[in-house]
Amino acid sequence: MREAFHEELEGIQASLVEMTSLVGSAMARATTALLDADLQLAEQVISADETVDLLRNEIEERAFDVLTRQAPVATDARAIITTMRIVSDLERMGDLALHVAKVARRRYPGRAVPPELHGTVLEMGQVAQRIVAKAGSVIASRDTDLAAELETDDDAMDALHRRLFHVLLERPWPHGMEAAIDITLCGRYYERYADHSVSVARRVIYLVTGEK
Amino acid sequence: MREAFHEELEGIQASLVEMTSLVGSAMARATTALLDADLQLAEQVISADETVDLLRNEIEERAFDVLTRQAPVATDARAIITTMRIVSDLERMGDLALHVAKVARRRYPGRAVPPELHGTVLEMGQVAQRIVAKAGSVIASRDTDLAAELETDDDAMDALHRRLFHVLLERPWPHGMEAAIDITLCGRYYERYADHSVSVARRVIYLVTGEK
Repeated sequence: MREAFHEELEGIQASLVEMTSLVGSAMARATTALLDADLQLAEQVISADETVDLLRNEIEERAFDVLTRQAPVATDARAIITTMRIVSDLERMGDLALHVAKVARRRYPGRAVPPELHGTVLEMGQVAQRIVAKAGSVIASRDTDLAAELETDDDAMDALHRRLFHVLLERPWPHGMEAAIDITLCGRYYERYADHSVSVARRVIYLVTGEK
Repeated sequence: MREAFHEELEGIQASLVEMTSLVGSAMARATTALLDADLQLAEQVISADETVDLLRNEIEERAFDVLTRQAPVATDARAIITTMRIVSDLERMGDLALHVAKVARRRYPGRAVPPELHGTVLEMGQVAQRIVAKAGSVIASRDTDLAAELETDDDAMDALHRRLFHVLLERPWPHGMEAAIDITLCGRYYERYADHSVSVARRVIYLVTGEK
């Protein structure tokens, strides 16, 4: 019984890792679509979000099944609850990639990101990749040292987010209000994406150490 | 056993309703702080968010206890899972009120909202009040008709959100970039607040009807 439970839990864990890979790829492609004004790629990200949502439902159903069929002990039940929260963070990260892709689509054939912010947004995309890849590794390995690294990566994202605002504010903005709104919103999407990744890592640590 | 379970579930439900009232009050006060540049009120909202977080933890602990102590049947377990999701939506709504209050604080003694948008933001605050009050009633009553009303209220919020962008975009914006950023972000906070309220209502309906 306990062994079956742990086997099912491992299967669910593998699906969570798969989900980090999907939402990581979504944000990578959304960033390229945003920077290159690539409509086709933006559309791909937008339609691929359904796969993330389906995987979310599938993981939740499986977790729920385990919970009710196997009458787990308290620590096992806590693992299931934590799984539900992680899956909710990951689904939200998929949505944030979708929002970035929608900004790219809305501005097509124009570019949402003016040249002087290209580098900053590119870096935000790179930090997002690094952080979601590490979140996946933390789920797979339960490595608490690696989980701690995500806090530093999140600081890097926050610094990039501040740089974005700095460029918006430092001198007269020549690109119009629509571009300013897009940059403000995209900045927030990347920052929240990183926050949710950190939250995933923290939940895994909580599971391992029992400490919040 | 089943009776004890339902009593505990009712207690948890009452706490969820209390939580809607807390996050409703938080958004009402945050809106006033934003519109009147009331620093003291903004600080109150910011420090009161801790109470929301504590109540969230308490509800989750209780739900979790019920789940593991009482070995519930599948429908009961589903009610607990739904509770966990509702509490997560409500906690997020508290955060969004906090974000609005932080914009008010950041701009003090200035006002984040220029005169021509005062009415729109006031209305967004009012729709937020209406929608969170209804979400509370839906939790208490499980009234599916009332839950359906939230979708209409959410449409009203979306229309106000579009009006905000329209004012930002329709003519040269005389209030500077900082004000434009604040309005863009606050608009998103109100819109997300309404989305989470709708999500709460939908989850209750799912519990009642089994339909998503």
